[in-house]
Amino acid sequence: MAKVAVDVMLKPEILDPQGQAILRALPGLGFDQVTAVRQGKHFEVDIDAADAQAQVEKIAATLLANPVIEDFAVRFID
Amino acid sequence: MAKVAVDVMLKPEILDPQGQAILRALPGLGFDQVTAVRQGKHFEVDIDAADAQAQVEKIAATLLANPVIEDFAVRFID
Repeated sequence: MAKVAVDVMLKPEILDPQGQAILRALPGLGFDQVTAVRQGKHFEVDIDAADAQAQVEKIAATLLANPVIEDFAVRFID
Repeated sequence: MAKVAVDVMLKPEILDPQGQAILRALPGLGFDQVTAVRQGKHFEVDIDAADAQAQVEKIAATLLANPVIEDFAVRFID
């Protein structure tokens, strides 16, 4: 069985208000060296398939990400 | 400048209804080899600090994750 991580992020040209809210909150908490924050989604998928990477890429493109506004990256973690 | 990723996941003993909804949807889309899905959050933080890893771990514990119900992992991506 493979454990595969999928990270889904808004494309760089799409505004990310959640990330900007975090960035603005940081100096008040004493963290003034952060220059950018982007927020996305992280999925961990357990899959029993020989072609786990290809299957999970299809799942990401179909169900986990919106390819119009989001990019995704797939990587094995186990 | 360092680019650091933070992955925040619900602790394994905490129910993850979003992940379960995805898992239940997959067979109907032709993906019947997936045995588990967990959903979490992914952050990408740009930081100008010599101790980037330690700083981002503090940020994750303070602002990005709720340590009562969530675990987080920090890794450099650039």
